[in-house]
Amino acid sequence: MANNRAVAYKGAGKVEVIDIDYPTYELKDGPGVNPANVGRKLPHGAILKVVTTNICGSDQHMVRGRTTAPEGLVLGHEITGEVVDVGPGVEFIKTGDLVSVPFNIACGRCVNCKTGRTEICLNVNPDRPGSAYGYVDMGGWVGGQAEYVLVPYADWNLLKFPDKDQALEKILDLTMLSDILPTGYHGAVSAGVGPGSSVYIAGAGPVGLAAAVGAQLLGAAVVIVADMQKERLEGARAFGCETIDVSEQDPREAIAKILGREEVDCGVDAVGFEAKGHGHDAQEAPATVLNSLMDVTKAGGALGIPGLYVTGDPGGVDEAAKEGSLSLRLGLGWAKSLSFTTGQCPVMRYHRRLMEAILHDKVHIADAVHATVISLDDAPDGYAQFDAGAAKKFVIDPHGTTGLATAS
Amino acid sequence: MANNRAVAYKGAGKVEVIDIDYPTYELKDGPGVNPANVGRKLPHGAILKVVTTNICGSDQHMVRGRTTAPEGLVLGHEITGEVVDVGPGVEFIKTGDLVSVPFNIACGRCVNCKTGRTEICLNVNPDRPGSAYGYVDMGGWVGGQAEYVLVPYADWNLLKFPDKDQALEKILDLTMLSDILPTGYHGAVSAGVGPGSSVYIAGAGPVGLAAAVGAQLLGAAVVIVADMQKERLEGARAFGCETIDVSEQDPREAIAKILGREEVDCGVDAVGFEAKGHGHDAQEAPATVLNSLMDVTKAGGALGIPGLYVTGDPGGVDEAAKEGSLSLRLGLGWAKSLSFTTGQCPVMRYHRRLMEAILHDKVHIADAVHATVISLDDAPDGYAQFDAGAAKKFVIDPHGTTGLATAS
Amino acid sequence: MANNRAVAYKGAGKVEVIDIDYPTYELKDGPGVNPANVGRKLPHGAILKVVTTNICGSDQHMVRGRTTAPEGLVLGHEITGEVVDVGPGVEFIKTGDLVSVPFNIACGRCVNCKTGRTEICLNVNPDRPGSAYGYVDMGGWVGGQAEYVLVPYADWNLLKFPDKDQALEKILDLTMLSDILPTGYHGAVSAGVGPGSSVYIAGAGPVGLAAAVGAQLLGAAVVIVADMQKERLEGARAFGCETIDVSEQDPREAIAKILGREEVDCGVDAVGFEAKGHGHDAQEAPATVLNSLMDVTKAGGALGIPGLYVTGDPGGVDEAAKEGSLSLRLGLGWAKSLSFTTGQCPVMRYHRRLMEAILHDKVHIADAVHATVISLDDAPDGYAQFDAGAAKKFVIDPHGTTGLATAS
Amino acid sequence: MANNRAVAYKGAGKVEVIDIDYPTYELKDGPGVNPANVGRKLPHGAILKVVTTNICGSDQHMVRGRTTAPEGLVLGHEITGEVVDVGPGVEFIKTGDLVSVPFNIACGRCVNCKTGRTEICLNVNPDRPGSAYGYVDMGGWVGGQAEYVLVPYADWNLLKFPDKDQALEKILDLTMLSDILPTGYHGAVSAGVGPGSSVYIAGAGPVGLAAAVGAQLLGAAVVIVADMQKERLEGARAFGCETIDVSEQDPREAIAKILGREEVDCGVDAVGFEAKGHGHDAQEAPATVLNSLMDVTKAGGALGIPGLYVTGDPGGVDEAAKEGSLSLRLGLGWAKSLSFTTGQCPVMRYHRRLMEAILHDKVHIADAVHATVISLDDAPDGYAQFDAGAAKKFVIDPHGTTGLATAS
Repeated sequence: MANNRAVAYKGAGKVEVIDIDYPTYELKDGPGVNPANVGRKLPHGAILKVVTTNICGSDQHMVRGRTTAPEGLVLGHEITGEVVDVGPGVEFIKTGDLVSVPFNIACGRCVNCKTGRTEICLNVNPDRPGSAYGYVDMGGWVGGQAEYVLVPYADWNLLKFPDKDQALEKILDLTMLSDILPTGYHGAVSAGVGPGSSVYIAGAGPVGLAAAVGAQLLGAAVVIVADMQKERLEGARAFGCETIDVSEQDPREAIAKILGREEVDCGVDAVGFEAKGHGHDAQEAPATVLNSLMDVTKAGGALGIPGLYVTGDPGGVDEAAKEGSLSLRLGLGWAKSLSFTTGQCPVMRYHRRLMEAILHDKVHIADAVHATVISLDDAPDGYAQFDAGAAKKFVIDPHGTTGLATAS
Repeated sequence: MANNRAVAYKGAGKVEVIDIDYPTYELKDGPGVNPANVGRKLPHGAILKVVTTNICGSDQHMVRGRTTAPEGLVLGHEITGEVVDVGPGVEFIKTGDLVSVPFNIACGRCVNCKTGRTEICLNVNPDRPGSAYGYVDMGGWVGGQAEYVLVPYADWNLLKFPDKDQALEKILDLTMLSDILPTGYHGAVSAGVGPGSSVYIAGAGPVGLAAAVGAQLLGAAVVIVADMQKERLEGARAFGCETIDVSEQDPREAIAKILGREEVDCGVDAVGFEAKGHGHDAQEAPATVLNSLMDVTKAGGALGIPGLYVTGDPGGVDEAAKEGSLSLRLGLGWAKSLSFTTGQCPVMRYHRRLMEAILHDKVHIADAVHATVISLDDAPDGYAQFDAGAAKKFVIDPHGTTGLATAS
Repeated sequence: MANNRAVAYKGAGKVEVIDIDYPTYELKDGPGVNPANVGRKLPHGAILKVVTTNICGSDQHMVRGRTTAPEGLVLGHEITGEVVDVGPGVEFIKTGDLVSVPFNIACGRCVNCKTGRTEICLNVNPDRPGSAYGYVDMGGWVGGQAEYVLVPYADWNLLKFPDKDQALEKILDLTMLSDILPTGYHGAVSAGVGPGSSVYIAGAGPVGLAAAVGAQLLGAAVVIVADMQKERLEGARAFGCETIDVSEQDPREAIAKILGREEVDCGVDAVGFEAKGHGHDAQEAPATVLNSLMDVTKAGGALGIPGLYVTGDPGGVDEAAKEGSLSLRLGLGWAKSLSFTTGQCPVMRYHRRLMEAILHDKVHIADAVHATVISLDDAPDGYAQFDAGAAKKFVIDPHGTTGLATAS
Repeated sequence: MANNRAVAYKGAGKVEVIDIDYPTYELKDGPGVNPANVGRKLPHGAILKVVTTNICGSDQHMVRGRTTAPEGLVLGHEITGEVVDVGPGVEFIKTGDLVSVPFNIACGRCVNCKTGRTEICLNVNPDRPGSAYGYVDMGGWVGGQAEYVLVPYADWNLLKFPDKDQALEKILDLTMLSDILPTGYHGAVSAGVGPGSSVYIAGAGPVGLAAAVGAQLLGAAVVIVADMQKERLEGARAFGCETIDVSEQDPREAIAKILGREEVDCGVDAVGFEAKGHGHDAQEAPATVLNSLMDVTKAGGALGIPGLYVTGDPGGVDEAAKEGSLSLRLGLGWAKSLSFTTGQCPVMRYHRRLMEAILHDKVHIADAVHATVISLDDAPDGYAQFDAGAAKKFVIDPHGTTGLATAS
């Protein structure tokens, strides 16, 4: 019955391609599956032949061994695919549809889903609100870095592309709809970005670059991206961003040179809990990014915080970090009347409008993040390169559908 | 004391350049000045040397004799200028500042101004909320198509450009901040335009084109502009809009060809009460545009209505039109759960962010509307050409400051 | 198989209690069922034993013969009941749950449902977006003025009361959650009502009174209800509203006496297309209410329009009314910068919070509308009394569950 | 020239009534006046005969010596008064008007004021955005716990009561419009309180009680107030709140008893930086309140934070506290998708609607906070009692206008 292959976590620093079961309309026991979810019936599910599935920075947290992820966990929550079968409870999604899967799994029936808060669905994760495919402590839904994957509540979760051929032509942009484009865009939206805004984005990884693209789409006048890695900053400049190398420059001074004033309207944290301090020999310093954002964002501004912060981090630098506590300059934030928005992006709130923007050539996210297609077998190498800081976004194409795979 | 020259309405179809008084810090009696405003002290005012002042479609309503505007009324409410003097109550605006003047005159002290509703300021027009320079029934504030003009409540009303030289380089874009760019943008905003939206804009005059530019800045995926005049539609296509010639095409069918579906997300009425019916020999038919917008906008959509509707129109086609009543298909609108936003644009809500967008090259409104600079003496000819349907936006440069004036 | 009884429309002015089939998980052919819906499978449905089901003013439009409703149509879209069976696709709703049914039928899978616009669901009515139980041109879903009724997409649509006994104690309030309380509240919300607002509500029928209750819950300072029927106005005064008898008083003058100024902040149209003119011998005059609301609402205000307007009205006073067109003073509305929100209330957006307000004694809607419980057999008499203008809200209790039924 | 008397800070733990100058239209040097503000001309100001001026919890921070406030600083930022003179630049406010003064001083001309962010006005405090009367590091505006006080930018800042006699009858409620009622209400608004909400308010001091009153006005279903002081909790119960004594009860358990679930919809921090830990012998523990709020607020909820946090606190428990840093469980907040709103309340955004609510008997804030009128001479004693934890809100009546003063 092993007619499916997938990328699995095999211990700190180790990922492998393994054989797994072909999906069925039931959630079976396996590595990381919450007991309360074992045996769950999924007549509302659809089985997808995966077209593209991307490696995400948040996968790295697990792969680096900074979580309690069990060995054998199948990874992957950024999924685009073709529907090859649907369960008996599926009414509107059809076999043959080409679809984007929001990384947040949502039931479409609870009070949070009904109000668009799919990132904190109450019915998919027995541990707490919110879930994702292939992720530790998220209920145990099998990841999508695989040939085939099951998506529950398919009528609710899936976004169908209107024209299959057109979609395949833009597949490297559309594959970013499952997570990073909406996540970055959400950061920009929750930072209050609109026409004419100046924006400071901490972090030039894929989410930071997606936030920059999102800010541009929202009409920002000036988008400033900060990082410590020159290659990433070059990437940001390539699509019209201003950049600051925080290993060398003071953020306020650098902003003043760009804008003529030391503060921006909007701040986005695209780094999260593994932040490093600024300057040459920067060590991990979890509160650095948020404290810096409070400093450089104008009074009355807003901070969007798509960067991940966790409730527990076994690898944290100190006791506080291990329990997810940060020493924040809230007094400064309060004096400046700042507001803060945290949490996972509710992808469904944004993916349709971002799809329209892609299909009508208003957004070119694949170029911005250097989308790089690799085969399923090359996924372990992709993880290694990404961990080493490659300024690329790896897109796994398990069936060679895109015809774009290169040796990684 | 006649050391000022200005464009004045001199009866139906007639405008002339006349000598008028140099402004003082008092509102003196004159054509169209409301008695309750005569003698009003203006220590909060600033006197501007006008750099540019544009001819507006709403000026045409007066010039065509469709209002009760008195002869001698000085026209002009789209004003950009340099401050040459300030009253004793002015604290922050300084002589030498280069500034944009919102066409809505506002006191900055009433409950409406305090909530950003400067288009319905309670303290400037004894007749009703809201006012404008050089306009009939607006209290009698002297128009700005002149060499010099007074702006009351200068600290509140004026938007200072941060760098004078930079501003003069972009003056043809910045001159549109006083009215049409914010007005068109307001239409797009109140129609709910955002990233990924499809938008239908009725009317390819300057406000319609500004709405199109605004929709693009807001991230719209597809902007469709409809008109009956081929030259205007060409202008819209030149900056990336789709177009529909409603003298020849059925709007729903034409939309379907463009979008693959018959309805758009958002509708903007940039025509107003002088609308004509569709088709070859279209007659004036005031409800045509709104009824058509209800037809082509999807259920749950919104209509932004920057196009002017008036409470009384002596030249209306019938009794209803004369009192500003329209036969609207509200039943259709209700069945589709549409919402409608009417009224003057509160320019101050938008002008600063639009200025930032211009200064950072995100918006090119001057090209979109074919800004055409003329001298004060050529203003009457500009009015005539605009009335004849010229696909241009005339910008009067009374002092030759821009160096861009051509024979009109 | 006829083990169900229901209230049916039997021609103009006539309703009868008839035998109908017990619900199954399929939408069968019958009076008014859209051919495209015949045979539709409903595994996602739940069968309810109806506890209470109210007669609505919009039912009257059909009963009066002003629609194309076919004879035999089972009426009733205001339903509260106990789940007695669920289809195989239902996961979270359980047999025994006591639930409120939003009158708008919604699939919970389309783009409109996903954004909370359940009033314009795309998948339930083949004719156009949006549907309701027991209503003409709404797809043919069987009405709920019956002993038993099927609710499709039960996990999505149903609101479960947290405690059954507590709910039965407040059943006369909770029964209003299916339509009029959210509908009136939606009118108040879309009119911009908040703490400190002054509100003018046209119409003291159940929806108008619900709007008044909703406005009070929203913190309004002054709620003014206008009608021509003294008994209804008395009812409004009984719970703290100010009232205006528009058959005798001029609205602006009456408002001035109450508020000290002639205009209110917010206007609600709780009348709709069967509006009458003001004054003694008022005739049907469909635009009266909206034009009056534009007159009495302050510049910058908003109009919430929960009152029903239709696309076609065979009984309309003139050709315009027959096609749902109204002669509206849009020029006045535009000069005052008013905004207008139309359409069915999306009940799901509000019913949970209103349920909480009822359960914690913040809202007493049953008293406000004079909820009057009758048996199923007394429903025809209830219709007759309501049509004659009884200031009551009739609540049908088909199984005698409430123990509150009186002879009607 | 000393014809004015006022309450002044005279060193840690000490306040005295002293003689000061009668106000003039110029900001003169004095204790705590920023050099850049010395000599500032104030033609836009009005001089008020103070009717009532309240002692605020934030005054206590200074009086306890936990700030750098200089000796001689005149205290008082909660001011209601009668206009006895106006400067030459005042146009709409008239001598004789009875007015409420927002505690935030605002110019009404800067970009922040124009967007309603009067709490961070750019033109009144040379040190940073935002200011207040009688407060350390706020520019040096003379406090209002005095017989007479100057209010700058009077046309912008002052809220006139529509009827003087009516206002004097409700003066103990209206006096709370200058600060605590809007501040508490702002906490509730920014916590997302609306009809049907459950709300947890940390702190039963005047701001906490005002937040509770505000939440009730906003339609909350359940308002829970937590504190460690029994007398304050009794006060909260007296107007319909549920209460939790956090010196004895665990918040989650106590909430579960009240609501049947462990989390609320909305959280308000009405304590601020001088928070104590929970339990019997609670010590100062600045992050306790916010961490507890993150714990008890549901996923997707919002925290309103009107409680004051400071950039520097010489009396802080440790180095972090001294610079305004807190050890916050942001990981928890992020996992729950919480949002946070900090900063001073922009009083002007709310005071008019709250005035309407008071004048129409929808709000009874004076009773809720136990407003207690004292003479100016009794102010020092009022400070002492308040510091000792008296469950009262002291209202100073310098001229005996209210006739309500009791021995304190």
